Formats: sequence, structure tokens, C-alpha cells
Amino acid sequence: QSEFRELLEFPERTAGRFMDKLLARYRADQTVGEALAVLRKSKAQRVRSLYVVSEDDVLVGRVDLQDMALAEPDTLMSEILNSVTAVANLTSTEEDLVTLFDQSKVDSIPVVDHDQKLLGIIRYANLFQAAEEAATAGIQRMVGASADERALSPPLFAVKRRLVWLHINLLTAFLAASVVGLFESTIAQFTALAILLPVVAGQSGNAGSQALAVTMRGLALKEINTLHWRQVLTKEVQIGLINGAALAITCGLGVWAWSQSFGLAVVIAIAMITAMVMAGISGALVPMVLSRLGQDPATASSIILTTVTDISGFMAFLGTATLLSSII
Amino acid sequence: QSEFRELLEFPERTAGRFMDKLLARYRADQTVGEALAVLRKSKAQRVRSLYVVSEDDVLVGRVDLQDMALAEPDTLMSEILNSVTAVANLTSTEEDLVTLFDQSKVDSIPVVDHDQKLLGIIRYANLFQAAEEAATAGIQRMVGASADERALSPPLFAVKRRLVWLHINLLTAFLAASVVGLFESTIAQFTALAILLPVVAGQSGNAGSQALAVTMRGLALKEINTLHWRQVLTKEVQIGLINGAALAITCGLGVWAWSQSFGLAVVIAIAMITAMVMAGISGALVPMVLSRLGQDPATASSIILTTVTDISGFMAFLGTATLLSSII
Repeated sequence: QSEFRELLEFPERTAGRFMDKLLARYRADQTVGEALAVLRKSKAQRVRSLYVVSEDDVLVGRVDLQDMALAEPDTLMSEILNSVTAVANLTSTEEDLVTLFDQSKVDSIPVVDHDQKLLGIIRYANLFQAAEEAATAGIQRMVGASADERALSPPLFAVKRRLVWLHINLLTAFLAASVVGLFESTIAQFTALAILLPVVAGQSGNAGSQALAVTMRGLALKEINTLHWRQVLTKEVQIGLINGAALAITCGLGVWAWSQSFGLAVVIAIAMITAMVMAGISGALVPMVLSRLGQDPATASSIILTTVTDISGFMAFLGTATLLSSII
Repeated sequence: QSEFRELLEFPERTAGRFMDKLLARYRADQTVGEALAVLRKSKAQRVRSLYVVSEDDVLVGRVDLQDMALAEPDTLMSEILNSVTAVANLTSTEEDLVTLFDQSKVDSIPVVDHDQKLLGIIRYANLFQAAEEAATAGIQRMVGASADERALSPPLFAVKRRLVWLHINLLTAFLAASVVGLFESTIAQFTALAILLPVVAGQSGNAGSQALAVTMRGLALKEINTLHWRQVLTKEVQIGLINGAALAITCGLGVWAWSQSFGLAVVIAIAMITAMVMAGISGALVPMVLSRLGQDPATASSIILTTVTDISGFMAFLGTATLLSSII
């Protein structure tokens, strides 16, 4: 709990949050025996490597404790010095740090200033909880709840962040409603259409969310990037066609049984296939486009997606119904 | 890519997946010098601690490399032996492992069999990518896309997992539609209600998703558990009332301007407050109840939530409209 409050004091998720201060300084012209004496006095615990600095604190390299243990005490630190490939600075974001650790397979990363002076060390372990928090933040950003809201945040803090997005959602919902409005005369003629609207919107929203979730996660885990758009779209169109066909049969039969109108069943079956394909395409495109625009692929993605799937679902269903109104 | 295929060979996310095989064995009656000679020959890299076993391979403790580096070469390993507090076995799940690492603040955990024989070591680093994958899997489980689907999985693999949930969603959508059906005569009288239905459903769905996301993440990060239900519900009811009131005004004014019917504006304003509170309550309850039932709080949570928010939104809106039909 106190750890959490401490984290909150840093407005940004940058290296400063995760850095341990230096407990001791090690030099390249020290012997291994001398450096071990410094380590003993430093009270550092379970260290795996020591960072070596010059007289003016500039980082010159890393010495692994394993090499020190295996070396003679009078060996110079410079003899077993490794170059440091991954360094962070105070403004490195959490995401930069996670990427650095992933690429370099080290268990600590030194933080330096713009003169390459060593400021502190970031341990893998410090980032672990933070990385998990960051990884799960997408779920909140998708629906317009800010990543810094917690389960027990004060209501007014939550209201401030959520209400903006609810108003944006209201605008997009009016947009979807205006599409329904275009078909007012068809609906006035067949109220069954109004009853079935939530079915089309619900299916198309769910299918779109599936495509969105899988694509967004692929981007987050860096398994794909925006250059894979063609493969991802091909995949989602195929899935949309197959799932759409299957649902067209089930849903068509259900509607036929309920309404006793074969025409209405045909209309919803055609709409289901169209809506499933459109949902797959938009579910894949939304995070890809956000990512291409330099945004987090999660940002409001669910709100944007719902707008697209609602509008395309309503168009597909009410459009088909209007065209085929003679057979309903 | 090859790493991913390797992961797929393990059906379950258990310790076996993340374990490094033993490169060498260390004994308590060895001297530090002898153990270091074994370590040198083992070609292990950047080790922080060694695990010590008895003659029959039973784990007896851990020696930190730092202590070995600081000790005289003829010191016995038994003199600097630490007891091991955190051990895993082959069936420990990824979640167990993440919890173990979190609690014990070590960088490796030994895996033992039921006779306490040492089988291998799990490094923190091996679990890092896995933990991030697990943390982001919730987004997929929420909408009925299985956690093992990847952005470039074959379409048929995806269809198999997603289609089941789309059919379940179809059933719940018919349920929501049947609620709309109850008010068929009111809708036949005022088609404006059919046009505004997506607005109510959209708002209530979005607000519910916000509550769901924040609660689900709190459970995942273990900041809350199901015993906090009262606090979380209180928070969400307050948020629902405030957001509902704000949206009632905006949305009411919008509907008044569009429809020129003050009565319809009053109906949607009342519905908005009711729907926002219901959405907050259900968004918080769905993951809590799933968690209480021993399920992953993400499982199909979005599908369940949409059903509840659709039905409660339609009830609130069409119910109020029916009651107040004289003023519309």
C-alpha cells in the first residue's frame, strides 16, 4: 500500500520510479579483492554484477560477480570488465525499460545522465510489478477509463476521467442512432426490425471485440506490427465469413421460428454475414490505425469499434430489410 | 517464433515450461573453491546463487555467489548456506510462480519433485515474457476469444474458439431482444424509441465496461479481492449517479432538440440515470461473482456484462417510456 502511494508521487512512469540509488562506487583500476571489500561494506544484497565508473563517475562498464568469484583477488577489475550495451536515462519510459530488459537479457540496467554519469541501477525485479500493471492497463484505456484509476480510487477521481469518454460515446451513439433514423419508415412498417436490432448490434459488437482483442494483444506483445495489416485483415475476413455463415444459419432459423417470416430470416442471415465480416475488418483495423498514428493501440479502441460495428451492423440489417421489404 | 512453438508444446502454463535444466550439482561439504571450480566448468552465465543438494539430489539450501566471492576459498559451502523459502514443483502454475517471485523477492526459484529432489531452476527472466502474456490474456478471455489465440493464428483455429462464444452471445442477444419485444406496442406507437434504443444500450454498455475493466484489473493485480465488494459497489453506485445525472442533462437536451418532445427528453434522462447506476453495479459484480465462483474474473465477462447492461438499459428506457407514454 505504501509502495503504491510512493509510485503515485511520480507523475510519469519513467526510470526515476524504478531506480535504486548507488550504494557504492567501483573503479576499473581496483583489484577484485579491493572491489569485494567495497561490496562487503556497501551492505548490498544478492548482487549479480557491479557497475564500474571513472573518477568523474562516468560509467565505463560492468563486472559480473561470477567472474570476480572465479578470479584471483589481485586481478584488476579492468581485466574482467564487460561493456554495457543497455543503458537507460531518467526519462526512459517504463515501456522503453521493458523493451531494454527483453532485448538485453540482463537483470539490471544502469541509469546515466546526458554526460554518461552513473545515477543508479534499475533491477528487473523492480519493474516486474510495474510491467504487469502496464500490461493490464490496456483493458481500462479501451473503454475510456484512464490507466491510473484503481479499483478503490475516489469516485470523483473516476468520474473526472470516465465522464469525458462517456460524452464522446454519447456523440457516437447519436451517430449510430441517426443511421437507424434513416430507416424510420421501414421500422414503422415492421416493428420486428426494432426488436432484432439489438441482436445484430450485439453480435457485430462481440465479433469485433474478439478481433480487436487479439490484434491489440499481438501489437502489445510485439508479435505483429502495423506492417502485418494485410495478413491480419485476411485472417479476420476469413473468420468473419465462416463465423458469419454459421451464425446466419443459426440466427436465421431462430428468427424464422420466432417470426414465422422466411423473408425476415433471409434478411437477418444476409445481415449477419455482412456484419461479421465488417466487424472483423474494423476490429483489426482500429488498433492498427491507432498504432500507426503513434497512439497506444488500446486508446478508446472499444468506443471507436462499437461505433463502427453498430453503424455497419444497422446499415447491413436495415439496408437489406429495406431492399428486400417486399419479401418480409 | 521458435520459442513460441516450444511454448505451445506444453498444454498447461506450468513450471515445466519455464524451468532451466541443472548444469551442475553443488554440495554442502564442498569448499567454496571447489564449488567455484564446478561453476567454472558448468558454463553457466551470470549466476547469482547456487543450489546445494545432498548425495541423493535432495535440495538442502542456497548459497549466494556474493557470499562465495567474499569468503575464503577453503570456507565450506555449509557455512554460508541459506535456507530456501520458496520452492516450486512441476505442476506449479504460472500464477503460483509469479506470486512466489513477488513474495520472496528472489531472482530464481528451485523446482523439486515430491521427494524434495532438485529438478531445475526457474529464473525470473524466463517468467517475465510469460507473465506479460498472461497479464494481457484477459482482454481476449473477456470477449470469448481464447487466451491461446495469437494475432497470426490460422483462421480455423480462431473460428473454433470464437464461434462457441458468438453462439452464446446470440442466445443472450435474443434474451435482450425479447425484452424489447415486451414493449412492442409502445415502440409501434413511438418509432423514435427504436431510434434511441442504441443510445441507451451504447451508454450503458460503455459505462458498464469501465466499471468492469477497473474492477477486473484490481482483482488481477490483487489490489482488491471479493471481500471488497461493498467498497467497490459503493464507489460504482456513486459514479453511476454522478455520471448518470451529467449524461441525463446532456442527452436529455440533445433528444429535446432533435425530437421537439420534452416528454421524450424526460424519459431518456430518467433512463440514463437508472441505466448508469445499473451498469456500474453490474460492471463491478460480474468479475467479483466470477472470481467468487473460482473462475478467472475475465472469462466471458464482457459477454455477460453486455447482456445485463442491454437488458437493464432497455428495461429502464422502454419501461419509463411506457409508464410516461402520456407525456411523450
